[in-house]
Amino acid sequence: MAAPIEFTVAACDGFARAGRIRTAHGEVATPAFMPVGTRAAVKAMSPDELWEIGYRLVLANAYHLLLRPGPDLVREMGGIARFMAFPGATLTDSGGFQAMSLAKINSISEDGIRFRSHLDGAPVTLTPESAIEVQQALGSDIMMVLDECTPYPAEHGAALKSLEMTARWAERCLRARSSATQALFGIVQGGIYADLRRLSAEQITSLAFDGFAAGGLSVGEPKDAMLEMAALTASMLPADRPRYLMGVGTPSDLIAAVEMGFDMFDCVLPTRNARNGMAYTSAGKISIKRAAYVRDPGPLDSNCQCRTCRTFSRAYLRHLYLSGEILAARALTEHNLFFYARLMREAQAAIASRTFRAYANSVTTALAEGDGADKETD
Amino acid sequence: MAAPIEFTVAACDGFARAGRIRTAHGEVATPAFMPVGTRAAVKAMSPDELWEIGYRLVLANAYHLLLRPGPDLVREMGGIARFMAFPGATLTDSGGFQAMSLAKINSISEDGIRFRSHLDGAPVTLTPESAIEVQQALGSDIMMVLDECTPYPAEHGAALKSLEMTARWAERCLRARSSATQALFGIVQGGIYADLRRLSAEQITSLAFDGFAAGGLSVGEPKDAMLEMAALTASMLPADRPRYLMGVGTPSDLIAAVEMGFDMFDCVLPTRNARNGMAYTSAGKISIKRAAYVRDPGPLDSNCQCRTCRTFSRAYLRHLYLSGEILAARALTEHNLFFYARLMREAQAAIASRTFRAYANSVTTALAEGDGADKETD
Repeated sequence: MAAPIEFTVAACDGFARAGRIRTAHGEVATPAFMPVGTRAAVKAMSPDELWEIGYRLVLANAYHLLLRPGPDLVREMGGIARFMAFPGATLTDSGGFQAMSLAKINSISEDGIRFRSHLDGAPVTLTPESAIEVQQALGSDIMMVLDECTPYPAEHGAALKSLEMTARWAERCLRARSSATQALFGIVQGGIYADLRRLSAEQITSLAFDGFAAGGLSVGEPKDAMLEMAALTASMLPADRPRYLMGVGTPSDLIAAVEMGFDMFDCVLPTRNARNGMAYTSAGKISIKRAAYVRDPGPLDSNCQCRTCRTFSRAYLRHLYLSGEILAARALTEHNLFFYARLMREAQAAIASRTFRAYANSVTTALAEGDGADKETD
Repeated sequence: MAAPIEFTVAACDGFARAGRIRTAHGEVATPAFMPVGTRAAVKAMSPDELWEIGYRLVLANAYHLLLRPGPDLVREMGGIARFMAFPGATLTDSGGFQAMSLAKINSISEDGIRFRSHLDGAPVTLTPESAIEVQQALGSDIMMVLDECTPYPAEHGAALKSLEMTARWAERCLRARSSATQALFGIVQGGIYADLRRLSAEQITSLAFDGFAAGGLSVGEPKDAMLEMAALTASMLPADRPRYLMGVGTPSDLIAAVEMGFDMFDCVLPTRNARNGMAYTSAGKISIKRAAYVRDPGPLDSNCQCRTCRTFSRAYLRHLYLSGEILAARALTEHNLFFYARLMREAQAAIASRTFRAYANSVTTALAEGDGADKETD
């Protein structure tokens, strides 16, 4: 039986690697950033725009889709990619992270997570088995195990207890998986404790997952701790499987994580920041609200070839933003997602030409300019 | 000196006519519907999408642009079309209608309208002269005179007084106009009084305007009165100038008005209704919220070739709408504007082939179906 996905590393430069993930819905070049399509839509974007920018893999949230419109409906409509009319591949998270951050939790036990829907208060139980069942109904190309995301801060003892349950849940997820076309990724936890990260990585990589993720990062811990734990986790993950750093991050975080050997990323920053008037540019972040742009006829980023930069002036975008026009959210989101896609394309090329270090330096220096450097506070 | 616009009637069928308006920013086929771009953006749409649907002329509101970002900025950015990156022609209203409906009016006198901005309460005076000055700064291809829109209901005496001031303001607007590339249209008022409509039409058409509009309709009067006054006004307007029915209307209103001999229309219905989940289809209006569509894999309108109908199912659009996704507003707006554009294209073809009456009958019958017929309550 063919594996549900096939990962090929085409080039390495230090720990960084460039490659491809073949899925049932096409190939994805790595390192890859995944736009977040929470409710089966990337906010403000149409699926053809995502495709034109170059995205071949988007993320959707099982928690949201479980509550509305429900996994059975999505299955009936041909699966999540077809439902949202995205011609590429999809990854779904397990729903656990959102249940813990959005819902009213009733209990987290060995069995699973009991919570009340943030939409209507209806009681829902998510177990390792039901998390897989939901994602199999959604029909994503890559599913994630149900894990307990260790919060920050957490005591060593609590983090240990949590990662051990995550390991038992991981085994249950693997046993529950019946789809031959959907990959399943394990998730390493361990908080910010190096020994626990190692232990969790040993436990999770001993299981036959198609890929591995570092979870429980970017949840409030200091940036240095995040980067240290990410690097440690990456070093423990097998080289022949995709490595996914969940929920990270800023452009400079992504460059740092690519250098550690991560292949996949997701983050709401480019889309959420866009809706708040923030644009990523080759000279750092800018806020389109600033009075300095009121009569500025230039594009957001004179080095950018996206449709927004080819079409609209900063003066117009500022006017749209201040007027609350939907087109402001559209134009800035398209620009930011183009920026992230270009960053990954450039990283791939730099790895292939073994110039990644120089590329990383040049990008990181440029990004530190602008209205404000990329900060934790994103 | 060449006229700022040139209007050519290519075919007539009864009172209905098909033709072209040549402007400094390209040609516009008539009958033409103009999408409303209140704040220099058609809500939820990008300018290239408007162009691809076939729109060559959009409307922007001088009132809104006067307050923000201000006419001087728009002039500095190359005029309204360039500012909003629309590659076609633009029409601006005078700002009077919005001042009277949105702002806190301090006084309406022979001099003009004194009001307070709905944004920040700043005092603004709009006179016939300043309304032209603002529109000349905006650089639209077609400007509208400042008029006093007679409210409904209005006594005969009040409506008479109002239209006479409108006539004096019309002369002042003509005298104030200095641009050789921007057309100026006069506006006929008169409420729902046939004698006053005739009087106003005589007064306004005695002046050297480049086109003529029927104003003060669709402001709350019964549909029959609206249609009767529109038909009467159309019959009084010269055949060699474009005739513009302001603020109207539903698809069946447009068909009726084309049959009266009107050439141009604007209305917020297709865009505003879209944002409220209403779609115009060849079988009448539908509300995407309806539970009947929850598992409906079909398009909004199986006779429609728009991008929304080629891409998304009703089930997905319903999910997007209930989830509050921006893409719902985008997809429904694009569909509705495509519907209106197609209606005008089909009307043009039916006039050219002298089959307009049969076309009008077939459309009007079909539109009466659906979740609900086109009603005043739009």
